[in-house]
Amino acid sequence: MSATSGLARTPAPPYYAVIFTSKRAGDDGRAYGEVAQRMVDLGARYDGFLGIESVRGADGLGITVSYWRDEAALLAWKRDTEHQKAQHAGRTAWYEAYEVRIAKVERAYGFSR
Amino acid sequence: MSATSGLARTPAPPYYAVIFTSKRAGDDGRAYGEVAQRMVDLGARYDGFLGIESVRGADGLGITVSYWRDEAALLAWKRDTEHQKAQHAGRTAWYEAYEVRIAKVERAYGFSR
Repeated sequence: MSATSGLARTPAPPYYAVIFTSKRAGDDGRAYGEVAQRMVDLGARYDGFLGIESVRGADGLGITVSYWRDEAALLAWKRDTEHQKAQHAGRTAWYEAYEVRIAKVERAYGFSR
Repeated sequence: MSATSGLARTPAPPYYAVIFTSKRAGDDGRAYGEVAQRMVDLGARYDGFLGIESVRGADGLGITVSYWRDEAALLAWKRDTEHQKAQHAGRTAWYEAYEVRIAKVERAYGFSR
């Protein structure tokens, strides 16, 4: 992930994207923010992690896209024990709704000044 | 797209996702905002459009994911004349950098209260 732009520097396709779109339930900000950041740091240590892009708007809608070498890599992260606890907290406390989409990136192109 | 949550209501996979991640160059807010909204409205009229999710953070990083029935549908929208003008303005004025990834959604699951 490029620290300056927030855009992930991914290799040439094919690779996988996990598109996680969520709507926050309320604002118990601090605990959520700490766990969310911890999940980014922890996921990035997994073999096959390629990058992450994440934005949350003022209205509580957020999109996080993480990129993975292959399905085995993203499934290993999904099953991480600490991540599973966070997923449970997401359903019971943090999110009003979310959607997870697993997609195979086939083509990519970009632009930078 | 669900007006209440901001999450797109997409059909069962497979379908396509266009992940557009961008970093704004500056803040000429109004013209950009108007064109961005126009592109959402115009794209939604295209055959094969399934939904859109879009968030921009306070730091200028934005993620917009649009969903499409198939590749032909998303390519038709890419080639739209007015959309092409907006793409040009994006490169010359609005964005410092962006990345477009075309991905085939293979699986999806969600949660809602």
